[in-house]
Amino acid sequence: MGRVTVRRPVVHLDGDKVRRRPDTLAAEEPLELRVDGKALAVTMRTPGHDVELAHGFLLTEGVIGAAADVSLARYCDGTDDEGRNTYNVLDLTLAEGVEPPQTGVERNFYTTSSCGVCGKAALDAVRLKTRFPTAEDPVRVSPSTLAALPGTLRERQRVFQSTGGLHGAGLFTADGAVLAVREDVGRHNAVDKVLGWALLEGRVPLRGTVLLVSGRASFELVQKAAMAGVAVLAAVSAPSSLAVELADEQGMTLVGFLRGDSMNVYTGAQRVAG
Amino acid sequence: MGRVTVRRPVVHLDGDKVRRRPDTLAAEEPLELRVDGKALAVTMRTPGHDVELAHGFLLTEGVIGAAADVSLARYCDGTDDEGRNTYNVLDLTLAEGVEPPQTGVERNFYTTSSCGVCGKAALDAVRLKTRFPTAEDPVRVSPSTLAALPGTLRERQRVFQSTGGLHGAGLFTADGAVLAVREDVGRHNAVDKVLGWALLEGRVPLRGTVLLVSGRASFELVQKAAMAGVAVLAAVSAPSSLAVELADEQGMTLVGFLRGDSMNVYTGAQRVAG
Repeated sequence: MGRVTVRRPVVHLDGDKVRRRPDTLAAEEPLELRVDGKALAVTMRTPGHDVELAHGFLLTEGVIGAAADVSLARYCDGTDDEGRNTYNVLDLTLAEGVEPPQTGVERNFYTTSSCGVCGKAALDAVRLKTRFPTAEDPVRVSPSTLAALPGTLRERQRVFQSTGGLHGAGLFTADGAVLAVREDVGRHNAVDKVLGWALLEGRVPLRGTVLLVSGRASFELVQKAAMAGVAVLAAVSAPSSLAVELADEQGMTLVGFLRGDSMNVYTGAQRVAG
Repeated sequence: MGRVTVRRPVVHLDGDKVRRRPDTLAAEEPLELRVDGKALAVTMRTPGHDVELAHGFLLTEGVIGAAADVSLARYCDGTDDEGRNTYNVLDLTLAEGVEPPQTGVERNFYTTSSCGVCGKAALDAVRLKTRFPTAEDPVRVSPSTLAALPGTLRERQRVFQSTGGLHGAGLFTADGAVLAVREDVGRHNAVDKVLGWALLEGRVPLRGTVLLVSGRASFELVQKAAMAGVAVLAAVSAPSSLAVELADEQGMTLVGFLRGDSMNVYTGAQRVAG
């Protein structure tokens, strides 16, 4: 798996027992994303699927809406001290007519409100930016299908199995078939990789699918799902207040605490049909 | 607890049983940080301890090193649609002679290397910026003290107990006494709140202390600990490769998978003394 994992010695203590042994760690490296040669963002990510990550990031920031909006993706030629390419700078060239992002993308999300930045301004910003409203997606998913997803995700998280240290995101059909699973030290990156995969496969907007995340559902993860047209987002852990508000506002189905047969449906319960 | 939690109705499914009931969610709202009136960053955080969060952020970004470096912290007067102050914009005025941050703080961390951005450049940047090198801290902590910390943190995480949805960070003395515990939907924010508390209490550099985080140890969390002079960082879950490299480079002790009597000591094992 190359740079996806790194081996290090570790001192393992268990009660009175002390052992020195090798340990496998999830790799973390900075990735600089450039658009038309101009630096846009640096994210700390697990190397691998970088082109998907970049496409997913631009999709969920509202810069692109289809694979054809990017004409070229290439690693820059930068090298480290030992003259090796770091593969940590990726430059995407936008197709003709695609508006380049303003720098400081994250901040622009909240500038609809001047001093009174608040949850509502954040919700408004997403509503304005979504190309693929999810409210009309008639997809239905059964509780038993949802219950099986975390096990499937975990089985496919190969790096997690060796390191115990990676977030996972999985995209499924409404009857539980796996479309793609990606892992990353960053939860947002795992989702961007999956959504970027879908974009490159021509599957965006992601009608009729379920996105599962291995941790919590924050505002920003719901936002990413909304930007890709995903109508059902499920999380193994808790959602935040603003995550639920955004899912509600977007007409999405948000499921949390998905553990065994037990789950909370926060919004859009009509899509969870037994 | 006011805006720290939010109540929402939820449909709870457990096997064939379906119940409608209220659920308590961890609040998430954007916070815009300004320095001398100029917008610096927006973070999605759980409201509360915002002044600590802002101080911790500026400390761990290398902008300030002591409470006296900030002369005034105040909420802006912005209001939402209903005319209420959002308390989501905090403006910090730096003391005379304190250099204001360059905007795009995050990005500046990696500009030591032009196209070849890599882990080493990130390590270099932290080394250059740390005011409080940790390598010389002679603090020792026993495995049994470490083993007790997660339980203490969890007990003090009051919002987690009601929502199941918050990251926690705790600062402890070397014999396991609690100094401060903070919670947030964002892992970085929980750490910034604790470190900001310490700065405001005049305790930075944090010699002789242990910082515990409820999740994983990423590069950025090790970096924050290093910037505050914390010599021992413990995490309930896995560290990433770059987290271990940075801890090693900084002469810090990094403990991961701290669960019951069992733990992995990745770096600085000489400080973990039975």
